[in-house]
Amino acid sequence: MRVAVVGYGNIGKYVVEALATAADCEIAGVVRRHGAANLPSELKDYQVVSDIANLTDVDVAILATPTRKVKAYAERILAMGINTVDSFDFHSEIPQLRRDLREVAQRNNAVSIISAGWDPGSDSVVRALLLAMAPKGITYTNFGPGRSMGHSVAVRSIAGVRDALSMTIPIGTGIHRRMVYVELEEGADFATVEAAIKADPYFVNDETHVQQVACVDELNDVGHGVNLVRKGVSGQTHNQLFEFDMKINNPALTAQILVAAARATLRQQPGCYTMIEIPVVDLLPGNRDEHVAHLV
Amino acid sequence: MRVAVVGYGNIGKYVVEALATAADCEIAGVVRRHGAANLPSELKDYQVVSDIANLTDVDVAILATPTRKVKAYAERILAMGINTVDSFDFHSEIPQLRRDLREVAQRNNAVSIISAGWDPGSDSVVRALLLAMAPKGITYTNFGPGRSMGHSVAVRSIAGVRDALSMTIPIGTGIHRRMVYVELEEGADFATVEAAIKADPYFVNDETHVQQVACVDELNDVGHGVNLVRKGVSGQTHNQLFEFDMKINNPALTAQILVAAARATLRQQPGCYTMIEIPVVDLLPGNRDEHVAHLV
Repeated sequence: MRVAVVGYGNIGKYVVEALATAADCEIAGVVRRHGAANLPSELKDYQVVSDIANLTDVDVAILATPTRKVKAYAERILAMGINTVDSFDFHSEIPQLRRDLREVAQRNNAVSIISAGWDPGSDSVVRALLLAMAPKGITYTNFGPGRSMGHSVAVRSIAGVRDALSMTIPIGTGIHRRMVYVELEEGADFATVEAAIKADPYFVNDETHVQQVACVDELNDVGHGVNLVRKGVSGQTHNQLFEFDMKINNPALTAQILVAAARATLRQQPGCYTMIEIPVVDLLPGNRDEHVAHLV
Repeated sequence: MRVAVVGYGNIGKYVVEALATAADCEIAGVVRRHGAANLPSELKDYQVVSDIANLTDVDVAILATPTRKVKAYAERILAMGINTVDSFDFHSEIPQLRRDLREVAQRNNAVSIISAGWDPGSDSVVRALLLAMAPKGITYTNFGPGRSMGHSVAVRSIAGVRDALSMTIPIGTGIHRRMVYVELEEGADFATVEAAIKADPYFVNDETHVQQVACVDELNDVGHGVNLVRKGVSGQTHNQLFEFDMKINNPALTAQILVAAARATLRQQPGCYTMIEIPVVDLLPGNRDEHVAHLV
C-alpha cells in the first residue's frame, strides 16, 4: 500500500521510520507546511510536498498533525477518496468526529480509522476486551510515568515561564500526581508561577509539585507507561483480576499503531471506525489464515 | 437472544450462571445426555432436553462439550441454521476446524465463533494486538499457577493411579514446571508411578515433581492465571515492554467469554471466525455508539 504522511513533527518522524520497516508499505510522500524547503536529511529519498494533492496513487494518509487539525485534514483527504488514520485524542469529542467522518467517508467510498494511538487506541481495545471478560467491576487506567503534552502546554502559557514539562505520575486507582518542572524567564518570581500553576484548571484537582530547573530540555524523555487494571465479575464469580502494563517510547508506539491502522483501513467497508470496531487481525500484515494458525 | 447450552459439565454450569446475569440473553434450554433425568436443582426453572432439536427459537448454541466433540456438535447445529460458539482448545487443529465449520455455516446462513475461551481466545486477541504494536520481538505466554486438564488426564491413565492433579507453574519465558499430585490405588508403588509420569510425553520435556497425597479432591481449585509478556520493536525503536496478567476462576471466565462470543455471532456475516477476527465491541451488549463514547 502507498501511504502519505501528513505532518512531520514528533509523530510524523516515527511514522516514516515505521513505514520504512513495513514490507507491505511504500511511502507515497510526506506532506509538510514548508514542502521540500529546509528538508531534513532523513527525508531526502522521499517526495516531500506541501499539499497531498501533489502526490500520486495514495491509498492511505496517516495524519500526524495536531489533534485539533485532524478533522479538517481528514475531511479534505477523505473527499479525495483517500483513506485516513489519525490519533485524535480529545476523548470526549471522538463520537462527534466519528459521525462527521463517517458521512464523508461513505460518500467518497473511503475508510477512516480514528483515535488510533495507544490511548485512545490499543488501551481502548484492552478496556473493551476486559469489559467483555468481566462485565461488572471497575477498570482503572493509570498513566505514566511520562510527560503530558496538554499539561506541559498549559504551564508554558503562564506568565514568567520560558519552558515547562509536566510529568504524569500514577499513584493508583486512576489518580495521578503532577510533577511540574519549570524554566523561568529572567526576573520571574517562582512562588507566583507555582501558585498560578496550582490554580490552573489542569492542575487544581491533582496533587501537584512544582520545581524550578535551569533547563527543561535536559529532562526531555519520550518514555511513557500505562497500567490498566480491572477487578470484576465473570458471570456470578467475583474477584477476577486483570492487569495490562506497558513501558514504551510514546511517539514510536503511536506511529506503529497508526501504520497498523492504515493497513486495516484497506480491509473495512466504507465508513469511520475506532479501534474497538475493527478485528485485531486486520492490523497485521500478511495472511489472515496464517495469523489464525500462529496466534490463536 | 435465545441461547441453548449444550453440555452441562464444569463449563456448562458456569455458562448458565453467566447467561442468567446477562440482560440481553434468555436461556432457551440446556441440552444434556440424560435430558431431564436426575435434574440438578439449579436447572429446575429451565427446559432441559437430550437433543437441541427439542428446543424452540434458538439463536445461538454454546457448546460446553469436551473439545473433541465440538466439531460434530457444531456441524449438526449449524446445519439447523443455529449459530454456535465453543472453546475448542486443540491449538494446532483450529485452522482445520475453522475451514470445516466455515463451509457448513455459510451454506446454512449461520455464524460460528470457535476457540472462544481465554487461551485460545482473549489471550489470542492480546497476542495479536501486541504483535501489531511491536511487530518484531518475542511474546511469552506463561500459564498458571493452575491445573492442566490434559496433563491431569494423562496421569490418571497411568497404572496404579486412582486420581491425579497436574498443576502448571510458570517459571518465565514460556517454560513451565509441572507439580503432580497423585492418589494411588491400593498396593501401587509410588516410585514406579513417579517414573512412568516423568517418562510420559506430556512431562518428559518439563521439570516435573510428583508427590503422593491421600486425597486429590482436597486440592481441587479452579483458579488459574496467565502472564503474557512481549518485548519488541515499534518501527525502529527497541525495548518496548508489554505485559498482560490475570488471576481468574478458569471455568467462570471461559463461560463469560462464550456468552460474549454468542452475542457477537449475531453481528457477523455467515461464516466461521476466531476471536482475533471479530471487533471486540461486538462482544459487548448494548449500543456500539455508547461503547465508543465510554471506552475509546
